[in-house]
Amino acid sequence: MKTKNIAVLGSTGSIGTQTLEVIRNNDDMRVVSLAAGSNITLLQKQIEEFSPKLVCVFDKKKAEELQKNLKNPETEIVTGMDGLIACATIDEADIAVAAVVGMIGIKPVIEAVKAGKDIAFANKETLVTAGHIIMPMIKKYGVKLLPVDSEHSAIFQSLNGENASDIDKILLTASGGPFRGKKREELINIQVEDALKHPNWSMGRKITIDSSTMVNKGLEVIEAKWLFDVSCDDIRVVVQPKSVIHSMVQFKDGAVIAQLGTPDMKLPIQYALTYPERRYLPGERLDFWKMSEITFEKPDMETFKGLRLAYDACREGGSMPTVLNAANEKAVALFLDRKIAYLQIADIIEECMLKHTTVKEPSLEEILEIEQKVYSYILSKYDK
Amino acid sequence: MKTKNIAVLGSTGSIGTQTLEVIRNNDDMRVVSLAAGSNITLLQKQIEEFSPKLVCVFDKKKAEELQKNLKNPETEIVTGMDGLIACATIDEADIAVAAVVGMIGIKPVIEAVKAGKDIAFANKETLVTAGHIIMPMIKKYGVKLLPVDSEHSAIFQSLNGENASDIDKILLTASGGPFRGKKREELINIQVEDALKHPNWSMGRKITIDSSTMVNKGLEVIEAKWLFDVSCDDIRVVVQPKSVIHSMVQFKDGAVIAQLGTPDMKLPIQYALTYPERRYLPGERLDFWKMSEITFEKPDMETFKGLRLAYDACREGGSMPTVLNAANEKAVALFLDRKIAYLQIADIIEECMLKHTTVKEPSLEEILEIEQKVYSYILSKYDK
Repeated sequence: MKTKNIAVLGSTGSIGTQTLEVIRNNDDMRVVSLAAGSNITLLQKQIEEFSPKLVCVFDKKKAEELQKNLKNPETEIVTGMDGLIACATIDEADIAVAAVVGMIGIKPVIEAVKAGKDIAFANKETLVTAGHIIMPMIKKYGVKLLPVDSEHSAIFQSLNGENASDIDKILLTASGGPFRGKKREELINIQVEDALKHPNWSMGRKITIDSSTMVNKGLEVIEAKWLFDVSCDDIRVVVQPKSVIHSMVQFKDGAVIAQLGTPDMKLPIQYALTYPERRYLPGERLDFWKMSEITFEKPDMETFKGLRLAYDACREGGSMPTVLNAANEKAVALFLDRKIAYLQIADIIEECMLKHTTVKEPSLEEILEIEQKVYSYILSKYDK
Repeated sequence: MKTKNIAVLGSTGSIGTQTLEVIRNNDDMRVVSLAAGSNITLLQKQIEEFSPKLVCVFDKKKAEELQKNLKNPETEIVTGMDGLIACATIDEADIAVAAVVGMIGIKPVIEAVKAGKDIAFANKETLVTAGHIIMPMIKKYGVKLLPVDSEHSAIFQSLNGENASDIDKILLTASGGPFRGKKREELINIQVEDALKHPNWSMGRKITIDSSTMVNKGLEVIEAKWLFDVSCDDIRVVVQPKSVIHSMVQFKDGAVIAQLGTPDMKLPIQYALTYPERRYLPGERLDFWKMSEITFEKPDMETFKGLRLAYDACREGGSMPTVLNAANEKAVALFLDRKIAYLQIADIIEECMLKHTTVKEPSLEEILEIEQKVYSYILSKYDK
């Protein structure tokens, strides 16, 4: 088989390291570029193992530090947004794994698409804020957008071989996070440590907090709207605490197709990298003879207000999802810094959304401008 | 859309009447032939509604009776096996719905395949006994074999768009029937009425008894082996009492694709008739916000010995599944006639299998001969 050349953007994060694990196990996959934020200790090890042609360290000082210690003359180090874009668009790459966290990922994704790269997609902020820009571009440049998120990969797998026009509803499953079943008043004193304990998935800090508030599920609703071209109201969130069913599609004849599995991100990552092929993947399998049950619940959108706000933003469209996402990004950062209380995350999102007047089809510049405004507003008011 | 012309074999049975319901709701489907055993009251109504060109009544006397009362000059009445084959192979038909009960269905299916008809397949005995004859024929004549059985349709739907070579396991779900959880000693005094109460599906009498003994699931295992070209040991039966998941496929990467739905046979019937298209189908939908759970169990192959025997027959291959099926057919008939006890059904199957010396690749003639021998043996010994 032809070697698949891969650009891994966000290589030191949770998805990034698991992507490298998949690549390590597939002889016909090769890393051509790596990009990371600042974790140069891990990045150096990755460079030594995979000998990429190009590496970006977003942080300039860290880049210089890495350059000093590096014994890989074949690897060129670049930095900043230009460096990140260079990694995403490098000639040799067939596919870019977009796994940087946050809105920093938008520009590299757009440039990679323009450069004709397929995208293995794990940067939901890009679609949440700029879906109206990205999706027509995906079509125009004839590249594939392959979801890596567990839920979106499940929907993608459930849709395989089916007509998108036959979709009646997307059933997006949610674990409900560590605070499922709790009421608002029980969440007042939640500390960072509590919120970082996800029942099923081992993920990065930001997304783990987002799971606990269900804002992550809300962002996934907006992402699904773009990926699968359905309206928000045709996406239903179903709480399924054990994360056995990774999501489902209900078709117009009433048939539901679901994808199930153990909570192992390597599966959707590998599927995105080998699609439409499936390959053996080591690891545990579901055992329905031992698993006694799968339970379902309706999500509690009063306690988990962030999910309701995401639906609101999704229906409103335009620049509103950008506000939701930016406010959440900053509020979560403040919570992780112990500067705001847990419930303030959703309150701040709501406050920012109420203050915002929607721009209908925001340009990338407008999106980034709105993002900055939201950041500044929150920092000036809450970062004390 | 081009009109789909349909031969309905077994039109007065459960699958047959539901097939006609689907046809009634689809303007571009037309009945060209109907075949039934002896229920001429219902058959006459069907003829009056659908005006088929050809109708077979298997029972000759009943055919004559029908002929007398019929006011449809455009409809020709035929009878017996020749008549059944004529209905299956009629020039006008694009697809034959094979829904006759029992081994009587084998010849018409073979002839329909030879005549280039696609087959909507609800006659598992055909594959169970003659899979080694039918499957190569399906390939040779380039026709489609579209499963109508709820479980096999679910597997077929789960495989849509996937490579059959990527299958790791087929997970065939089973309701467990009305006696799930009971032990052998509790089944000694089971009466016909008890066994006819299926918890989820409304079906014909023979298959309802087969569900209660789990022999039906065993026949489905053998059917799945042929339909999806896997070994028996790669088919695992999973008891899932509410019949929400209709079956699943586990792929080599660990991903499981499942088809779920309400227990409505019109869905797999319509899917077989419109494949690869899906169409709106009236009826209830699954509601995961209300359904609280799906539970799973390992099947109890000691109490439900028929399932174990089916696995034995499947592994042995050759003529052994014919013995299993014929013995079951006759034993169930005797049970329904109150001539044997409930547990004797499986005991008789076992007895016949033990007595039989397997023929490796039995011809159709050998299959029918073995079937007759099994019938005679059982009748001479148990029909008193």
